[in-house]
Amino acid sequence: MLSIDKLWQDIEKIRNTSPLVHNITNYVVMNTTANALLAIGASPVMAHAVEEVESMTGIANSLVINIGTLSKKWIEAMSLAMKTAKTKRIPIVFDPVGAGATSYRTETCLKLMNETHPNIIRGNASEIMALVDSKIKTKGVDSAHTSDTALKAAENLAEAYGCTVIVSGKVDLITDETDTIYVKNGHEMLSKVTGSGCTATAIVGAFIAVNESSLFAGAHAMAVMGICGEIAAKNAKGPGSLQLNLLDAFYNLTKSQIEDYLK
Amino acid sequence: MLSIDKLWQDIEKIRNTSPLVHNITNYVVMNTTANALLAIGASPVMAHAVEEVESMTGIANSLVINIGTLSKKWIEAMSLAMKTAKTKRIPIVFDPVGAGATSYRTETCLKLMNETHPNIIRGNASEIMALVDSKIKTKGVDSAHTSDTALKAAENLAEAYGCTVIVSGKVDLITDETDTIYVKNGHEMLSKVTGSGCTATAIVGAFIAVNESSLFAGAHAMAVMGICGEIAAKNAKGPGSLQLNLLDAFYNLTKSQIEDYLK
Amino acid sequence: MLSIDKLWQDIEKIRNTSPLVHNITNYVVMNTTANALLAIGASPVMAHAVEEVESMTGIANSLVINIGTLSKKWIEAMSLAMKTAKTKRIPIVFDPVGAGATSYRTETCLKLMNETHPNIIRGNASEIMALVDSKIKTKGVDSAHTSDTALKAAENLAEAYGCTVIVSGKVDLITDETDTIYVKNGHEMLSKVTGSGCTATAIVGAFIAVNESSLFAGAHAMAVMGICGEIAAKNAKGPGSLQLNLLDAFYNLTKSQIEDYLK
Repeated sequence: MLSIDKLWQDIEKIRNTSPLVHNITNYVVMNTTANALLAIGASPVMAHAVEEVESMTGIANSLVINIGTLSKKWIEAMSLAMKTAKTKRIPIVFDPVGAGATSYRTETCLKLMNETHPNIIRGNASEIMALVDSKIKTKGVDSAHTSDTALKAAENLAEAYGCTVIVSGKVDLITDETDTIYVKNGHEMLSKVTGSGCTATAIVGAFIAVNESSLFAGAHAMAVMGICGEIAAKNAKGPGSLQLNLLDAFYNLTKSQIEDYLK
Repeated sequence: MLSIDKLWQDIEKIRNTSPLVHNITNYVVMNTTANALLAIGASPVMAHAVEEVESMTGIANSLVINIGTLSKKWIEAMSLAMKTAKTKRIPIVFDPVGAGATSYRTETCLKLMNETHPNIIRGNASEIMALVDSKIKTKGVDSAHTSDTALKAAENLAEAYGCTVIVSGKVDLITDETDTIYVKNGHEMLSKVTGSGCTATAIVGAFIAVNESSLFAGAHAMAVMGICGEIAAKNAKGPGSLQLNLLDAFYNLTKSQIEDYLK
Repeated sequence: MLSIDKLWQDIEKIRNTSPLVHNITNYVVMNTTANALLAIGASPVMAHAVEEVESMTGIANSLVINIGTLSKKWIEAMSLAMKTAKTKRIPIVFDPVGAGATSYRTETCLKLMNETHPNIIRGNASEIMALVDSKIKTKGVDSAHTSDTALKAAENLAEAYGCTVIVSGKVDLITDETDTIYVKNGHEMLSKVTGSGCTATAIVGAFIAVNESSLFAGAHAMAVMGICGEIAAKNAKGPGSLQLNLLDAFYNLTKSQIEDYLK
């Protein structure tokens, strides 16, 4: 069971210090994840030129790498930013979007992860399983598996890279191999909003900027994502209003809502 | 007159099978069209690296090519994806955004279309006319002509490429040269939402994935776009709320709404 | 004090003539700024290929350059578009996003501005100050200074480049070095919507297309941005609904609202 006090402490830190979260992410979700970070209280910046990623990462409080619309130049920038972050002890969150859909995606992920072990990896079940077993296939960017089937893969990945692994799904798993936390909040309609996984990853970037424990930063972020998703879904008529309500929910989240919603 | 039963059959197939629609599209609308595809029930993926487009197209149920923010590297990827799709008999929808605005756009469209005949081409009147007559000018990405003036051009294009051509406008024309279907649904405020044409093209991508007839896949998609646009406009206070309501309308569309709205 | 009649005249010109605004802008806000331009009545186009920027700028009524997610290829295109605009006397609005965050950003801005003096430069206080004093630092893309502290820098910049400089903030300053106009409209929640500064810049692009005075085009645009922000905030529950309401407010703006809201 998560501590509501510690979760709330993270949110207050984010709101009070507005950590700078440097994102190298995909074209589809840049606007969405920037808005999610602003709504939760962080300060997002998107920058990907090899000429400046070292400088930009260097002033950031965390780095979020998301390979969603990867290409050669962008992978170079991601690699450079991750190395800079590691040297400067700036925490890295990595999202292996579509790993398992093409071998280019899986191999790019493994290359980046082997060069610089991220602090947290977040993906859906198929993506996490594909990073461990090359026979696993992902349907584009959508999971073909449920999160509980990915537990063993997540633990193996956490051990191999010395990191925390988050498998999002109906129930989210957050594991550092030693400990595993389950987050049961969320709403199924979120899967009908593009980039809701990427938004979760970005929110993890805000929490890891203020909480040194990868395990708890990850769990707190996923709980907030799930709770705000539920609050957003209450008055949503479909995925369009859900996406809007989600930003409003991040912005307005109170401690008493967390007490009411956390499962 | 379209058959409501057959239209509804397509929607049920999309919702039940979630076809994977591979999009190589422009930066402006990636988020919007991914959300539209999710809302109607499909599974969108955006990927443009030359290293992976063959693999990604290869697992897709349809391919949507939209040249909106074209550049050299992206055209290479589009070309490669289209060739892969043709070889594997995966249907291709092509959107010649801004053809007629610059010769670079017109020539790129013709090059791609000549290499690999798409199954469906969708554009506004100026764009379709510019593909047939190089003297026609497009105002940026907005049409300077009405759809009925483009009928002859659409028929010529359909004949030349052995494909279905959709001209969207106040009335949409869908022609395979032999037959022409008119769709009279829609709402004028949609022209104040960026990428509503691109959204129509993406939705066509979902229908062609489940319906082998390009003519009817195109007509069904345009009818759904128009009907959902009208439903969305009913409670919209402007183009901001219209865009949100449109996603909700795709998600909630019922057969009885189609019966009520189809003109 | 701004003349409401002259401000309204600009809006009517935009709505009646739909000026074509060519944007070379960042990935994060492309959708948002295209929608803002459509909602206010302009016709936006986004195009960045070096092969076509001269043609596209050549048919446009104004050019908006925003370096938000800059990279080498895009800077080339920006440079080429700006030179074309200058030759053809098409007004240029320049947004130095994140100047002062990395030296790459600051230097790129100065290079582009030195090559082709823009008609209007709009930034937040830190960005404007960083263009004048290399010791000033910007926190990613967010200002670390208030707009009034940037007045001297804005005046210096306006003199050096013979242009109008807009510093947006709680109070917006618009100066051509000789005259300075203050716009006091706006809402603090706008800072929680990504790209609200970029949206302001795009709106300036619509006004400069119909008003030859850079000073008054800039001031009218910022007043409209601020007023619509206030109208949007009235029924907003957070930054999600604010963003949507802002588009609706642009679309529905009346002269009597300007009379009621202009401070």
